[in-house]
Amino acid sequence: MGNEKIAILIGSDSDYGVMKDALNILRNFGVEFEVSVISAHRTPERVIEFAKNAETQGFSAVIAGAGKAAHLPGVIAALTTLPVIGVPIKSSALEGLDALLSIVQMPPGVPVATVAIDGAKNAALLAVEIMALNDPDLKAKLKEYRESLAREVMEKDERIKGEVKNP
Amino acid sequence: MGNEKIAILIGSDSDYGVMKDALNILRNFGVEFEVSVISAHRTPERVIEFAKNAETQGFSAVIAGAGKAAHLPGVIAALTTLPVIGVPIKSSALEGLDALLSIVQMPPGVPVATVAIDGAKNAALLAVEIMALNDPDLKAKLKEYRESLAREVMEKDERIKGEVKNP
Amino acid sequence: MGNEKIAILIGSDSDYGVMKDALNILRNFGVEFEVSVISAHRTPERVIEFAKNAETQGFSAVIAGAGKAAHLPGVIAALTTLPVIGVPIKSSALEGLDALLSIVQMPPGVPVATVAIDGAKNAALLAVEIMALNDPDLKAKLKEYRESLAREVMEKDERIKGEVKNP
Amino acid sequence: MGNEKIAILIGSDSDYGVMKDALNILRNFGVEFEVSVISAHRTPERVIEFAKNAETQGFSAVIAGAGKAAHLPGVIAALTTLPVIGVPIKSSALEGLDALLSIVQMPPGVPVATVAIDGAKNAALLAVEIMALNDPDLKAKLKEYRESLAREVMEKDERIKGEVKNP
Amino acid sequence: MGNEKIAILIGSDSDYGVMKDALNILRNFGVEFEVSVISAHRTPERVIEFAKNAETQGFSAVIAGAGKAAHLPGVIAALTTLPVIGVPIKSSALEGLDALLSIVQMPPGVPVATVAIDGAKNAALLAVEIMALNDPDLKAKLKEYRESLAREVMEKDERIKGEVKNP
Amino acid sequence: MGNEKIAILIGSDSDYGVMKDALNILRNFGVEFEVSVISAHRTPERVIEFAKNAETQGFSAVIAGAGKAAHLPGVIAALTTLPVIGVPIKSSALEGLDALLSIVQMPPGVPVATVAIDGAKNAALLAVEIMALNDPDLKAKLKEYRESLAREVMEKDERIKGEVKNP
Amino acid sequence: MGNEKIAILIGSDSDYGVMKDALNILRNFGVEFEVSVISAHRTPERVIEFAKNAETQGFSAVIAGAGKAAHLPGVIAALTTLPVIGVPIKSSALEGLDALLSIVQMPPGVPVATVAIDGAKNAALLAVEIMALNDPDLKAKLKEYRESLAREVMEKDERIKGEVKNP
Amino acid sequence: MGNEKIAILIGSDSDYGVMKDALNILRNFGVEFEVSVISAHRTPERVIEFAKNAETQGFSAVIAGAGKAAHLPGVIAALTTLPVIGVPIKSSALEGLDALLSIVQMPPGVPVATVAIDGAKNAALLAVEIMALNDPDLKAKLKEYRESLAREVMEKDERIKGEVKNP
Repeated sequence: MGNEKIAILIGSDSDYGVMKDALNILRNFGVEFEVSVISAHRTPERVIEFAKNAETQGFSAVIAGAGKAAHLPGVIAALTTLPVIGVPIKSSALEGLDALLSIVQMPPGVPVATVAIDGAKNAALLAVEIMALNDPDLKAKLKEYRESLAREVMEKDERIKGEVKNP
Repeated sequence: MGNEKIAILIGSDSDYGVMKDALNILRNFGVEFEVSVISAHRTPERVIEFAKNAETQGFSAVIAGAGKAAHLPGVIAALTTLPVIGVPIKSSALEGLDALLSIVQMPPGVPVATVAIDGAKNAALLAVEIMALNDPDLKAKLKEYRESLAREVMEKDERIKGEVKNP
Repeated sequence: MGNEKIAILIGSDSDYGVMKDALNILRNFGVEFEVSVISAHRTPERVIEFAKNAETQGFSAVIAGAGKAAHLPGVIAALTTLPVIGVPIKSSALEGLDALLSIVQMPPGVPVATVAIDGAKNAALLAVEIMALNDPDLKAKLKEYRESLAREVMEKDERIKGEVKNP
Repeated sequence: MGNEKIAILIGSDSDYGVMKDALNILRNFGVEFEVSVISAHRTPERVIEFAKNAETQGFSAVIAGAGKAAHLPGVIAALTTLPVIGVPIKSSALEGLDALLSIVQMPPGVPVATVAIDGAKNAALLAVEIMALNDPDLKAKLKEYRESLAREVMEKDERIKGEVKNP
Repeated sequence: MGNEKIAILIGSDSDYGVMKDALNILRNFGVEFEVSVISAHRTPERVIEFAKNAETQGFSAVIAGAGKAAHLPGVIAALTTLPVIGVPIKSSALEGLDALLSIVQMPPGVPVATVAIDGAKNAALLAVEIMALNDPDLKAKLKEYRESLAREVMEKDERIKGEVKNP
Repeated sequence: MGNEKIAILIGSDSDYGVMKDALNILRNFGVEFEVSVISAHRTPERVIEFAKNAETQGFSAVIAGAGKAAHLPGVIAALTTLPVIGVPIKSSALEGLDALLSIVQMPPGVPVATVAIDGAKNAALLAVEIMALNDPDLKAKLKEYRESLAREVMEKDERIKGEVKNP
Repeated sequence: MGNEKIAILIGSDSDYGVMKDALNILRNFGVEFEVSVISAHRTPERVIEFAKNAETQGFSAVIAGAGKAAHLPGVIAALTTLPVIGVPIKSSALEGLDALLSIVQMPPGVPVATVAIDGAKNAALLAVEIMALNDPDLKAKLKEYRESLAREVMEKDERIKGEVKNP
Repeated sequence: MGNEKIAILIGSDSDYGVMKDALNILRNFGVEFEVSVISAHRTPERVIEFAKNAETQGFSAVIAGAGKAAHLPGVIAALTTLPVIGVPIKSSALEGLDALLSIVQMPPGVPVATVAIDGAKNAALLAVEIMALNDPDLKAKLKEYRESLAREVMEKDERIKGEVKNP
């Protein structure tokens, strides 16, 4: 169906620091994306318009990060049948638990694929996993990425084993 | 400005049992109201349409009850400048904490007046308090209502004092 | 009925930093207000006196911010039928959850309109929404305010879109 | 100073079932008490009057049980320097955590001696411990009571040891 | 790439009652699926084998439901690059919060798409949304499904409006 | 009975910073006290010995502060019938919730009078309230203290009212 | 060193229902054990005596189950260097979270090996794992047990696969 | 059976700072150990291989520290019958509650001996307690260690008693 872009929606510009992790992953995987600062509460009309047109605009999935009463992912999900991935953002109170529950506890009928608090990196990887279902090159890159994660852990293992021997 | 009705919005018909308390209070105070079952996630278009027109439809406040990732009050609040009163509804998991945080933790700029978990009665009383600011009759009824609450407590006091004496 | 002032009550002077947001909003909207530092636990007599006279003093709503076992909003609400708006203040332990539950979980009969933890700005906006029900000028300002919020988000959207293109 | 009575305050008659445990303990210890159903939110005037006069009425301590936004113990404590013992009552949502935090998280200056959720029995025992400081007979009864608790555990130990051997 | 099946993994047969909702959704959408009872802790070898072969076995996504220290979804996700959807199951203590955190708080690098506590229905819908990206028929069915949800809400709206008028 | 001292027990020297507030209150009220660093887990024998002898050593109440799995107050309470006041200390994780629940949730039969997290000041005031039941001078000082609290709030009220007028 | 028995301590006879799971496991593994109902708060002397003598009595580990402010495991651990395994028991409020935190959050120096809420079965298995370190027969039984767990899951897998095919 | 080493597994090198406490304890007790950085999610194959061979490699217990959705201890425990000790590590959100629940709430059949959040020291002490069951020298050292803990507390007691006298 030719969809090849990921939308990254950010509920507030203060969440941009966390959401950058998603951008970096998509860049590294060579996946096209578009970023919008858009608020379920302050720019509801734009959110509605975005969600209704996301599919025809060529997006294959939407990543939405939001904090506190984080309605953005759920409101998008209500207006599209594209997969919507929600990133709860930790804000000053309640350690991000508010955003986590506001995003993950969606009612039956309208899912949001929720990742960890401040888990923007995994949101992007989940989007890549979805796109890779029909893209053997992306699938291969994902496997390489997993191997690089393993290598990284093994290098740290070496380093710390050395440190333990010669403290 | 002539607004004299309260809108009562219910996110799911399973919440109707709890929300009935609000209807009863408004009936007792002789305040006109309209009830709608309307879902931020399953009927988003209707929610949007309702919110945009709530003011011109003659509503002076909106009471919205919802459970889990309870987005309904916040979505309404984003699209109207009428006071929106949110009622977190307890559902099967997490004791209503999810709905409470989803409703109360609104970001700066768009308030939702949140009451207790399953606190539909107080949502209606809050709406009456708001309307009573310009309605001396309603104000008088509110004062009578408070007195009836006090009398009720005093009667219980009598009854339990009796029970304590003659167990 | 001629009420045109908002009371802002602060449970402890250490909460003043948070509550200033409410003052600024009311100033911006041209709404008259009076600030009092007043404690449900340390100056209970003044709280009682304030609450009983709030209506005749010309207040149309009361905003009360308090932390920990935050009884101030509830105690005020018990002694007046004016709308009372509670602001839970985050203090050093428990991330503000204690204040939130102490304020929002009011028993049936006596509502407190609760906003987010440290949500003083929204408390003021809720008060403005209530007053605007009978004040077309205020209603117009509220709509402008919402538009300014949207513009702000859109400007941030522009800025971050630029940053994404030219990192 | 001649104070020899304990006041037992119950925020709502639905809490009477839990609070009965306190009555029974005081009866067993032969300590005089008076029970009142009295509500910080529904009968605030009576609460204020009660608290101000508690000392001259001959009470030596106040036990106050309340659920949800359980303000009763704190409001009493603000208006008397008698020891106030708070019993958080579990209600339908949040497992009593709301009442616990509303009672225990009092600000510096005004203490409430808080016991476990639904811990009316311990509230009464704490009151007895306080009175026993100046009453050798009560002190002796407390020690007997502790011994009876131990005996009870030891009997259960015997019974269950028997059950384990011959299941 | 020809993958057309969904795997549904159930950590314990006591979770089958909840997970049936996922089966029903997939049946209704005509999506092929295979169910396995498989435990990260009791049959770890089978979990490992399953995860490594999931892709070559023709699965396009894995839905895994588990309770308590719900490791199943994460362990699967560690061994495949297919999208893994986790369903936290509420068990007797902690209201499902343990399972939710165990599933959603995955470390950077290995995502699990988490849905609500007991949200098996939404897990299946998310899988359908993913498959529908390349299946116009499925996409059409999803849109019909959303419309049926809306119709259902509107029928309930009618029914309850009737009930309110003639109680 | 001649008891005139308060024991202040500190579970770990890192809690001394918080517990100093209790010392200062007792000094200000002219109440004699003794401080011990003593650990339910690291010096259990001393805890046992202390608790058994507390009454004959002339203590009229015990204040015990502890963090994490804060067993100190409960262990003391199990071995004496003096009033035991527990202060939950906030440590690096869980915001003091662990200590609060470990102290307040005592089983029926053995009460601990629990104050707020880090509430050492109120623990001392509670001890003073208990001692004041039989000490008219102390009672008078308590009333003066409450008045000084009120004056302090009123001064802050003046100061902040000034600041609001001339920002 | 000849220790071959496990002690099972139960804080309250109401916890016996949960703790029976531990007895059954030990019986099945042919491990000797002794059960005592013993309370850190109601029979502290016996707890102290038990803990001090546990090693010379021939116990190799202690399993202690307790609810609410569950001090029993920690108090035992303070007085012995045997491994102590704690079982948090869910009681009527707070879903067992209080017992979990009271048991697991032990301060540095005195560990308690904590298992899941109501996890008596795993407590016994952990004791068996410890004993099996020096008992090849027990080790063999443990491996058989794990295989039986796996077989059980596989049988359930068969059964549910059948049910799915022929609903 | 000749096992004399402890394995220390660290889920991420960022957890090394916390886990060092375990190394230091084992060094002080003269217990041999091996440290590995190994991730249930990033190096699952190595985790599986490690767990299956832990026993034949001569380990007598495994200490595993992990944060967030902390699956490492549980995955190890599923593949060995050695005692597995889990250390929940506090990470940036949720105060370590996520790791605690992910580790402690293991299902029946596969135990993990859980210690406090960031409780690496106690994990090592628990391992020493287990090894000391068959090693009288280690047992003696444990008793000395406990005495040194007591001495440390008593020294602090002296120091603070001095400070209180001469502030």
